[in-house]
Amino acid sequence: MKKTAVKFLQKPKLDKPVLIGGLPGMGYVGKLAAEHLLGVLRAKKFAEVLSPHFPHHVVVEACGTLRPLRNELYWARLDGKDIIILVGDVQPVSSEGHYELAECILGLAEKMGVKQIFTLGGYATGKYSETRPQVIGVGDSKLLRGIKARGIPVERGSGPIIGTAGLLLGLGQLRGIQGVCFLGETHGIVVDHRAAQAVLEVLADTLGIKFNMTNLEQRAKMTKEIISKIRREVELRERKKKQREEEESWYIG
Amino acid sequence: MKKTAVKFLQKPKLDKPVLIGGLPGMGYVGKLAAEHLLGVLRAKKFAEVLSPHFPHHVVVEACGTLRPLRNELYWARLDGKDIIILVGDVQPVSSEGHYELAECILGLAEKMGVKQIFTLGGYATGKYSETRPQVIGVGDSKLLRGIKARGIPVERGSGPIIGTAGLLLGLGQLRGIQGVCFLGETHGIVVDHRAAQAVLEVLADTLGIKFNMTNLEQRAKMTKEIISKIRREVELRERKKKQREEEESWYIG
Amino acid sequence: MKKTAVKFLQKPKLDKPVLIGGLPGMGYVGKLAAEHLLGVLRAKKFAEVLSPHFPHHVVVEACGTLRPLRNELYWARLDGKDIIILVGDVQPVSSEGHYELAECILGLAEKMGVKQIFTLGGYATGKYSETRPQVIGVGDSKLLRGIKARGIPVERGSGPIIGTAGLLLGLGQLRGIQGVCFLGETHGIVVDHRAAQAVLEVLADTLGIKFNMTNLEQRAKMTKEIISKIRREVELRERKKKQREEEESWYIG
Amino acid sequence: MKKTAVKFLQKPKLDKPVLIGGLPGMGYVGKLAAEHLLGVLRAKKFAEVLSPHFPHHVVVEACGTLRPLRNELYWARLDGKDIIILVGDVQPVSSEGHYELAECILGLAEKMGVKQIFTLGGYATGKYSETRPQVIGVGDSKLLRGIKARGIPVERGSGPIIGTAGLLLGLGQLRGIQGVCFLGETHGIVVDHRAAQAVLEVLADTLGIKFNMTNLEQRAKMTKEIISKIRREVELRERKKKQREEEESWYIG
Repeated sequence: MKKTAVKFLQKPKLDKPVLIGGLPGMGYVGKLAAEHLLGVLRAKKFAEVLSPHFPHHVVVEACGTLRPLRNELYWARLDGKDIIILVGDVQPVSSEGHYELAECILGLAEKMGVKQIFTLGGYATGKYSETRPQVIGVGDSKLLRGIKARGIPVERGSGPIIGTAGLLLGLGQLRGIQGVCFLGETHGIVVDHRAAQAVLEVLADTLGIKFNMTNLEQRAKMTKEIISKIRREVELRERKKKQREEEESWYIG
Repeated sequence: MKKTAVKFLQKPKLDKPVLIGGLPGMGYVGKLAAEHLLGVLRAKKFAEVLSPHFPHHVVVEACGTLRPLRNELYWARLDGKDIIILVGDVQPVSSEGHYELAECILGLAEKMGVKQIFTLGGYATGKYSETRPQVIGVGDSKLLRGIKARGIPVERGSGPIIGTAGLLLGLGQLRGIQGVCFLGETHGIVVDHRAAQAVLEVLADTLGIKFNMTNLEQRAKMTKEIISKIRREVELRERKKKQREEEESWYIG
Repeated sequence: MKKTAVKFLQKPKLDKPVLIGGLPGMGYVGKLAAEHLLGVLRAKKFAEVLSPHFPHHVVVEACGTLRPLRNELYWARLDGKDIIILVGDVQPVSSEGHYELAECILGLAEKMGVKQIFTLGGYATGKYSETRPQVIGVGDSKLLRGIKARGIPVERGSGPIIGTAGLLLGLGQLRGIQGVCFLGETHGIVVDHRAAQAVLEVLADTLGIKFNMTNLEQRAKMTKEIISKIRREVELRERKKKQREEEESWYIG
Repeated sequence: MKKTAVKFLQKPKLDKPVLIGGLPGMGYVGKLAAEHLLGVLRAKKFAEVLSPHFPHHVVVEACGTLRPLRNELYWARLDGKDIIILVGDVQPVSSEGHYELAECILGLAEKMGVKQIFTLGGYATGKYSETRPQVIGVGDSKLLRGIKARGIPVERGSGPIIGTAGLLLGLGQLRGIQGVCFLGETHGIVVDHRAAQAVLEVLADTLGIKFNMTNLEQRAKMTKEIISKIRREVELRERKKKQREEEESWYIG
């Protein structure tokens, strides 16, 4: 394995599949969303991607078994729509590795007839959103216009999109593959099922498909509780700090 | 894309063109100067350069559209002189990447008949120059002598020239391409249109061409105002600090 | 030497040898254990591995002689069992280098008929274990079940296994080579013969072989004494610190 | 230039030349010594080495001319002895680059009939040696024994030898080229002509050649004066600091 390589477990014949990518990143939003999809769509794994640009360690699974770090490709069919889902343990360690992985997956996508890519992720705000997390959409302008025209709540985004979520779209473009990246608003320090749910709902509306969200909704509630708890603690600390400062200023002043 | 690659959009026939390079760097001086040239010369893009040695993110443009990071090559003709202009979002992330990019662009330049290269950039002083920013010229001694003989205000420079601005000239030399790097004096913490203007004026005199500077002059004034404002604030803070120290020394002493 | 390369000193004919790997890592546990094996099994060196991914320095030996950094492969036969032992000065400096080294050694192992790999190492706890250091086993589930069924004291492990100890097993799996990694509990700041002894005992039981441990036992006792001394000092310092804090609180309070 | 490459300016026919290497490193000892040799032996440059593993900047020379970073190979003949001297601006930026450079130079050395290599450098002590700086010799045991037998003052060394000085010898060994690295004792924060002189004297004795040291001796005296001045200042500061501490303890105590 001198470079990023795909190992096929089966070769499904798919009809213009849509590629959905969710690798670990900010708040684990993309990974959580994509892995939820795997479950509800009963997706079947058809390929594994290994790379010398992944970190130099191996994963130990719950049972004590060990395996190399990898990305995985699954496929599913829903309402007559063929879907490929990219998930994985990690992203590459270097810029060069990121480009190699993206090109490797795009080569495979092109051969399988992929015309559209949706990548999922989070964008950090450093704040706890009270209301439903916003979802930002960046990518192909025609695709985005279509999405907004249908009333799907997607905000305009800015700034660089780092890693595979961005490169798959940017380099895909050069191969004539359209794409959009949906990023859910997240604090940045919590694994965020709530943002994952928001991102998935936008994706489902965009693809015009429906699937069970129950599991994710429950976990999203737990995320909300964790965030509330952290927030209360932070506020408490800040109140104490302020009080202490006032007392001190009283003594000194 | 296993390595730095050029994608041609058109193949202009040029007559011994001069290559002018301005990539992001200190004070964004080179990039600002080269991009101003693009506008005033109504230059046409003929090639894009992509590289796995660029950072692993993508650019989101104002409209929400996304694209890979790239360098771009434009061409223009002014007063019978053919000009190629290199601009770009970024420079490579590694030393090896810098050498690869420079060699890639030099290969293209050689094929297109380039005999002279001028690269533009800034050099940081950490100070706010009251007067017109100095421009340093380093590179081919014969070229430099000619420039100075014509009374163009270019100072002698020293120190290493980091990145593509230097490598294009250093490695170009080995291919028999002469070149000079013009570096404008800049503070280092401000995007500096003023230094860009100074560098462009020297370049225009060197090439014996004239073009509209109005837009840049206006932005240069804004830079000057920003710098004055920062300076006043820094001075104010320092005065306060000094005053506080004097008061304290009065109490203690 | 553009990439990791094996230099053979002899080509022993071995019968389904077991590969045992112990490179420098946490507490030097793996290296100590593997080097002890070399001695007691009177193993013969048959190959050296050099790599441009090793650090860019050379080793100076006690006599003032100098040599490149390397990994080494030895072989031995015990109770009719053929054994290959991997030891070395260092591990590669980059992720890419780790993958290359592991693949290089696995290529050689496959050709020599290796069907099982055991890698040895330490896992840091930041604590001084009073009792015999635990040994964790991760890897092939069938192999692990067999080991536990025979009453060998191996605990279930978790977390990533970093470096060659993990990659040899993870990437070996893809070539149909089973393997287990034994990690001895260690503090993390001491070269730990005690953990090495614990790991070797588990390995010996697993392979059903017996060999002299005397030397290692003596050094293990020294490790224990070093650890006890460090512990007493740490406790002393903490007692003093606590005392000082109490005194200060008395004055202030 | 995808990898380290040699550009020949002439192809001298040499008779079993000795290769002497001095690249920038600790105290610039090796570089100073090798460059002094160039002058006194009136050595002629016959090759330049360029590498994408060198830092990504270019050198600006006193006259304002610019050139790529490089290593250079010179040759000279003294008392019937052929000598190749390696000097340069820099060493590579990565481990992989160091290995590539060393292999590149060794390939050339082998073709030119080199059987012995001497590399020069410094080892930092963090102290100012009152007496003549010691010189450590590490490398081929037979060569070292011969050197010591002749009463040349070379001490036994230990520790890793970092960079090209070490790799040329370590990897040269594998090609059957003997070698020794001479390291002069140096403080580590001063460009040290004194250590360079000490190293060169040992080298001259080893090779049985004589050459003018006047220039280096004068600079060595200057180094000594600089070191004395720094030492006096450091001592002064420490005295002041101690005094201040005593005064404070008097007030507080």
